[in-house]
Amino acid sequence: MRASACDAKQARQTSTQDKTIVTMTSRISPLAPTSVPAMPPIAGVRFATAAAGVRYKGRTDVLLMVLDPGTAVAGVFTKSKCPSAPVEWCRDKLKGRKARALVVNSGNANAFTGKTGREACAFTARIAAKAVGCKPDEVFLASTGVIGEPLNASVFDGVMDTLVANARTDGWLDAARAIMTTDTFPKVATAKALIGNTTVTVNGIAKGAGMIMPDMATMLSFVFTDAPIAAAALQALLKECVADTFNAVTIDGDTSTSDTLIAFATGAAAGAPKIGKATDPRLKGFRKAFMAVLADLAEQVARDGEGARKLVEIQVEGAVSKASARKIAMSIANSPLVKTAIAGEDANWGRVVMAVGKAGEPADRDKLSIWFEGIRVAHKGARDPSYDETQVSQAMKSQTIALKVQLGLGNGRDRVLTCDLTKEYVAINGDYRS
Amino acid sequence: MRASACDAKQARQTSTQDKTIVTMTSRISPLAPTSVPAMPPIAGVRFATAAAGVRYKGRTDVLLMVLDPGTAVAGVFTKSKCPSAPVEWCRDKLKGRKARALVVNSGNANAFTGKTGREACAFTARIAAKAVGCKPDEVFLASTGVIGEPLNASVFDGVMDTLVANARTDGWLDAARAIMTTDTFPKVATAKALIGNTTVTVNGIAKGAGMIMPDMATMLSFVFTDAPIAAAALQALLKECVADTFNAVTIDGDTSTSDTLIAFATGAAAGAPKIGKATDPRLKGFRKAFMAVLADLAEQVARDGEGARKLVEIQVEGAVSKASARKIAMSIANSPLVKTAIAGEDANWGRVVMAVGKAGEPADRDKLSIWFEGIRVAHKGARDPSYDETQVSQAMKSQTIALKVQLGLGNGRDRVLTCDLTKEYVAINGDYRS
Repeated sequence: MRASACDAKQARQTSTQDKTIVTMTSRISPLAPTSVPAMPPIAGVRFATAAAGVRYKGRTDVLLMVLDPGTAVAGVFTKSKCPSAPVEWCRDKLKGRKARALVVNSGNANAFTGKTGREACAFTARIAAKAVGCKPDEVFLASTGVIGEPLNASVFDGVMDTLVANARTDGWLDAARAIMTTDTFPKVATAKALIGNTTVTVNGIAKGAGMIMPDMATMLSFVFTDAPIAAAALQALLKECVADTFNAVTIDGDTSTSDTLIAFATGAAAGAPKIGKATDPRLKGFRKAFMAVLADLAEQVARDGEGARKLVEIQVEGAVSKASARKIAMSIANSPLVKTAIAGEDANWGRVVMAVGKAGEPADRDKLSIWFEGIRVAHKGARDPSYDETQVSQAMKSQTIALKVQLGLGNGRDRVLTCDLTKEYVAINGDYRS
Repeated sequence: MRASACDAKQARQTSTQDKTIVTMTSRISPLAPTSVPAMPPIAGVRFATAAAGVRYKGRTDVLLMVLDPGTAVAGVFTKSKCPSAPVEWCRDKLKGRKARALVVNSGNANAFTGKTGREACAFTARIAAKAVGCKPDEVFLASTGVIGEPLNASVFDGVMDTLVANARTDGWLDAARAIMTTDTFPKVATAKALIGNTTVTVNGIAKGAGMIMPDMATMLSFVFTDAPIAAAALQALLKECVADTFNAVTIDGDTSTSDTLIAFATGAAAGAPKIGKATDPRLKGFRKAFMAVLADLAEQVARDGEGARKLVEIQVEGAVSKASARKIAMSIANSPLVKTAIAGEDANWGRVVMAVGKAGEPADRDKLSIWFEGIRVAHKGARDPSYDETQVSQAMKSQTIALKVQLGLGNGRDRVLTCDLTKEYVAINGDYRS
């Protein structure tokens, strides 16, 4: 089984044949947040988790979220040309704009599974709809884990009624835990905002770890609010907010087949005015809260990058446009030479110059300046005259590294998050036969 | 010094502070060719090497090639927007179409060195021209090593006259050795061809190792022939032949600031007809020989990828065009997840699907088939029904891995070479502070 195609690397956490990996992935990332926010309930949202035995033993691997009637839904998905079956299912069901349930499993991505994959989706939606009391078209699905193995959806049949019966409004960390693969900590975030005079809440969960350079969203993330926002407005808001959050994160430059970010708005916040358009000025506070939740989850994904020991923020300024700054920032963030240098605590700005140069965007070597942790190491096309190795070496010991590039060409700026590239990344992804 | 920006990682070979790296890089790649071809002389080409002490101790680090009057020259260079000073020098001097000398040093890339970098080029050309007896504009330059450190070109002054005096027609391996950085073996190739009734020879040398995804040529490669080919024809031929050789190799997706491939045609082969155009039918045999030398050198670069234990050939067929096949092949070749899986001897076709999907090129999941080492593991969008893990696992132990993808869309096909991503790559590039 282990030779078959696997994605972010699943079952190894529980494999008895692979003790190195067990140790490795069961260790929590040194970059994990030091505290977990208290997650308030969201009116109109109840949920439960179960251990269906998809692939893992002794842990939960399925999450059911039950949504009250009237819940609006919006989603963004991987741009992969080989998307998973659940991604195709959700894209289609988004047309209805309504959601009553979400079923997420870990252990099997139901990707590259052909006709049986589509059938597994239809079957799961059918049994969930029956248990919840809705139409299959109102059930959203997501899967993460092995690619290419048929998903035996019949295992959900045995737990669906219990899940509905057990559904409660609390336990968000358990929900986040049920969708983990090689993640080392569950990822949750919350924020509040006023719409009119009514306080509304936004809660989100996410999973990440590897195969992460989201081209629409991270592998899996789900955001819930009780705000009464129409599906079209929610979709516009989601698209707007994902650009600088999930889409500005990369672990390894590898875009998953399963990237899914779905937002649900139950509208159950009593007294809040109904919002029909994303441009509604009453969304000002909500937009900020929504953005904050997405940004928080996206950063947690970077903090849990496979093998990561350092969180790296790359800021590019002075580019000809924001899009150009993004391309250059991503070129730096995905450069194996830059990432290994940071792992080695080496402020190797020569490799940053290389990554700027290969991005294919306008750049003028003789106007380029580079900072590590606020210390300017290169200025206008050469080593900074005041360069002090001792000072820079000390700064590179930090767990979070800020890398700034000033191109000196225009006003375009952007920021992306990544992590370093360590031997542990190679071990997690390559060692399970050694 | 070591905190300053470094490229492919230079001096560490001789650093006494870093025994791990010394051991590592002094070990010859397991993928090195088992034999070295006998390199014939090229009429009109003499050369010598010296230890100028640019950065390394106890090894040669400067190569002078002296070319007879009448030598035509052509070159292709990095597409980096932050090219090295020698790259800019050569681009400018190519306009003259004539070459009398080539000076190459290792240990310092003379990249991102501003005005002092340009001055170092001018100075080196001037002293070489004086020693050889030509114009500075007829001297071509290349440098590889640290990025961002000023190159002290005065060290060449002490060795230039001796180099000219010592110049001979043999010792090609020594020439290739003088330009190595983290390369573990010198790279040479040779081929012969008939032009009219005259046998002409093509010799080439190259260096690679890391920061390798040439966008015009590899870091440094030089090709010499005694064929009488005009500069314009040589340039056209070079551009044509580089596309499927050096430009079809990637080690880490990182394009160097210094990529340089220069071809010199002395025209000294007695009796060969002068060739003015690349379309001349008499070039048929020469084109084949020229292509063979470039392909051989490019493969040696892949075989000496930093930390490489497996040479990987990626073939993409059935794409909508050759360009589309190239993009998909490069997406697979640069995927850290595919590369680590191959290092782990895991035929992880799920990750190949991922890499096909993220390439942004037309692909239809349900038409996709994938082979490892000739064994079909996935067919038409799902695991191959006849998949046999034992057989595939055995095949993955091979030192060379053939990975084929059939897209089933059109007739576009392409091939790229890469290597696996091992913990040694991370060690070579990240460990020198640990």
